[in-house]
Amino acid sequence: MMSDAELKQLFETYLVRQIFDKEPVNLYSPIKYTLENGGKRVRPLLVLLSAKSFGADIQSALPAAAAIEIFHNFTLLHDDIMDQAPIRRGKPTVHQKWDENTAILSGDTMLVWAYKMLEAYDIDIYKKLNSLLNKTAIEVCEGQQMDMDFENRQDVMIDEYIEMIRLKTAVLLGAALQFGGIIAQASDTDLQNIADFGIKLGLAFQIQDDYLDTFGDKDTFGKRIGGDILDRKKTFLYIMAMEQANVDDKQHLLKLYEDSTLPDDQLISKTMALYKKYQVDQIARNEINYYTNKALEALNHTNLPDNEKLFWQKFAQNLMHRAF
Amino acid sequence: MMSDAELKQLFETYLVRQIFDKEPVNLYSPIKYTLENGGKRVRPLLVLLSAKSFGADIQSALPAAAAIEIFHNFTLLHDDIMDQAPIRRGKPTVHQKWDENTAILSGDTMLVWAYKMLEAYDIDIYKKLNSLLNKTAIEVCEGQQMDMDFENRQDVMIDEYIEMIRLKTAVLLGAALQFGGIIAQASDTDLQNIADFGIKLGLAFQIQDDYLDTFGDKDTFGKRIGGDILDRKKTFLYIMAMEQANVDDKQHLLKLYEDSTLPDDQLISKTMALYKKYQVDQIARNEINYYTNKALEALNHTNLPDNEKLFWQKFAQNLMHRAF
Repeated sequence: MMSDAELKQLFETYLVRQIFDKEPVNLYSPIKYTLENGGKRVRPLLVLLSAKSFGADIQSALPAAAAIEIFHNFTLLHDDIMDQAPIRRGKPTVHQKWDENTAILSGDTMLVWAYKMLEAYDIDIYKKLNSLLNKTAIEVCEGQQMDMDFENRQDVMIDEYIEMIRLKTAVLLGAALQFGGIIAQASDTDLQNIADFGIKLGLAFQIQDDYLDTFGDKDTFGKRIGGDILDRKKTFLYIMAMEQANVDDKQHLLKLYEDSTLPDDQLISKTMALYKKYQVDQIARNEINYYTNKALEALNHTNLPDNEKLFWQKFAQNLMHRAF
Repeated sequence: MMSDAELKQLFETYLVRQIFDKEPVNLYSPIKYTLENGGKRVRPLLVLLSAKSFGADIQSALPAAAAIEIFHNFTLLHDDIMDQAPIRRGKPTVHQKWDENTAILSGDTMLVWAYKMLEAYDIDIYKKLNSLLNKTAIEVCEGQQMDMDFENRQDVMIDEYIEMIRLKTAVLLGAALQFGGIIAQASDTDLQNIADFGIKLGLAFQIQDDYLDTFGDKDTFGKRIGGDILDRKKTFLYIMAMEQANVDDKQHLLKLYEDSTLPDDQLISKTMALYKKYQVDQIARNEINYYTNKALEALNHTNLPDNEKLFWQKFAQNLMHRAF
C-alpha cells in the first residue's frame, strides 16, 4: 500500500514526463513554470485514490489525474490575472513574471491540454470523462464570474455565496473523485454519491477556510489571522453577519470595510466583535458540521467496501480537523 | 440543393437556439453579443458543405459546425485583448464594451462550450472530433504565440512566417473540412486530403490577403490600400523583402517602419517601391498560385465524386479570384 507521499511522487514523475520542451518557448515555459511549482496536488491525488477505492489500477488513472491538475492550474493562471495577484505559491505569478498576454495564452493552452490528456482512454470512458470535464469547467467559470460580481454588490445572500463556492471550488473536487470512479467503471449511483461526497466536503472545507482565517489558531492555521478582513473579502462570516445584523450594525460593518484609515488591529477586532455579537462563528461551525455530515452520508450511500469507506471517513476527518 | 445563403441561415438559426439566456448574466451576455455579431461564418459552412460532399446529412453536422464557430470566436475574443483591438466587425470588442476580465472569462467559457457542442455525437465520431479539436486548438495557440513573438523580432524568416499563418489560421480551415468528413465517416486518406486542401487553400488565402492589402484594387478589396504598411505589420511582403533586400535596402526598410514622422502616403509609396524593386509582388503571386495548386492537388487525391470535386474547385477559384 502506497503512502500519500509515494502517491504524490508517482504523480509528480508522471506529470513532469508530460512537460517536454516544446516550441514556441514563450508559450510553453510559463506552463512548465506553473506545473513545476508544486502545490499540494490535492485534486490529482483524489483521482488516484478514488480510482483505487473503486478497484482500478492506479497507473490507469494517471492521465485523468494530470488532466484535473492541468485544468486546475489553468484556472489559477487566469484567476490570478483577474485578481491582479502578484504571488502564487511563494513565486511571482505568470502575468507578473511574463505579461498578461502570455498568461492568457498559456492558460488557454493548458485548458486544451487538460482535454488532450484524456485521449489516453477508450471511447466509452473517454466520453464520460470529457463530458464531466465540460460540465465542471463551465461551472467553475460561472463560479468565478459570481465571485467577481459579488465584489461590486452589497446585498449578496448566504445562499448565493454557497452556490458560488460550490461552483468555483467544490464541483472540481467532486469531479476529481468521479473521474476515479469513471475509470474504475463504477455504477452511476456510486458516481453520483462519490461526487456528492466531494462537493459537500469541498463546501465544508471552504467555509472552514473562511472560519479559520478569522477564528483559527495562528500557529496551526499557518496564515495571518484576519487576512480576509484586511482584504475586505466577502467571506461566509461577513455575508452571514450582514444578513443577521440589525440596520445599525449593518451600516457599521459596511463602513468598517469602506474605511481605509483604520489601523489593521482595530479593523480586525471591531469586525470580529460584530461577528461574535451575531454568533456567526457558531453559525459557521454548524454549517461546517452540516456539510461534513452530508458528505459522510453520501459516502455511506456508495457501494464501496467497508475498508474503503473507512479510508475516506478518515480522509474527511483529517481534512476537517486541521485547526479547530 | 441549398444555396449558400440558405445554408448560412440554417446555421444561424441553429446557433441562436444554443444561446439561451443563462446566468450569471455578466458571463453569458458577452458570449451572446459575440456570437450574434455575425461574420461570414466561413468555418461552420465548410463543416456543413464538407459533410454533405462526403454523403452525410447536413443536419447531423450542425453541432460540429457550431463547435468550430464558437471555438473561432473564442480565439477572436482573446486575440482582441492581446492586440488591444477596439473594434471587431464594426462593433466594440468585448474587452472594450465590458472589461478585460470579462473577455478572458467569457472566452474561456466559449472554449469549453465548443467542446460541449461535440457531445451530440456517438462515441466513435465523438473521440475523433474531440481529438482533432484538441490538436487544432493547440496549434492555433502556438500560431498566436509565434505571431506575438514576431512583433519583437527583426529577423523573421519567410518559412517561419508560413508556419505561423499555417498554425494561426490555416489548420482551423483544414479542421472544419475534416470535421465534415469525420461525421460522414470518410476514410482516413480522404480525411487527410480534405484537411490538406483546406490548409493549403488557407495559406494561399492568407498570403493573398497580405498581397491585396498593398497591391489590390481599392474598390474590389474593400479595405484601405496600404493599411498593413501603416500598421507596420510584418506581412509576407515585408518579410520577403527583408529576406531579399541588400544590406542598404534592408536598413532603409527597417527605418521606414521605425519612422513615425513620415506622412502616410510617403510611407506607403516608399515601402511599395522597395517591394517592387525586389519583385515581392511577383513572388507573392507565385506563392499564392503554388499553394492554390497544392490545394487542388490534395482535393484531386480524395475519393469524392466528380461533381463534388468540381464544387470545391469552384469554391477555391471563387475564393482566390476575389480581386486580382
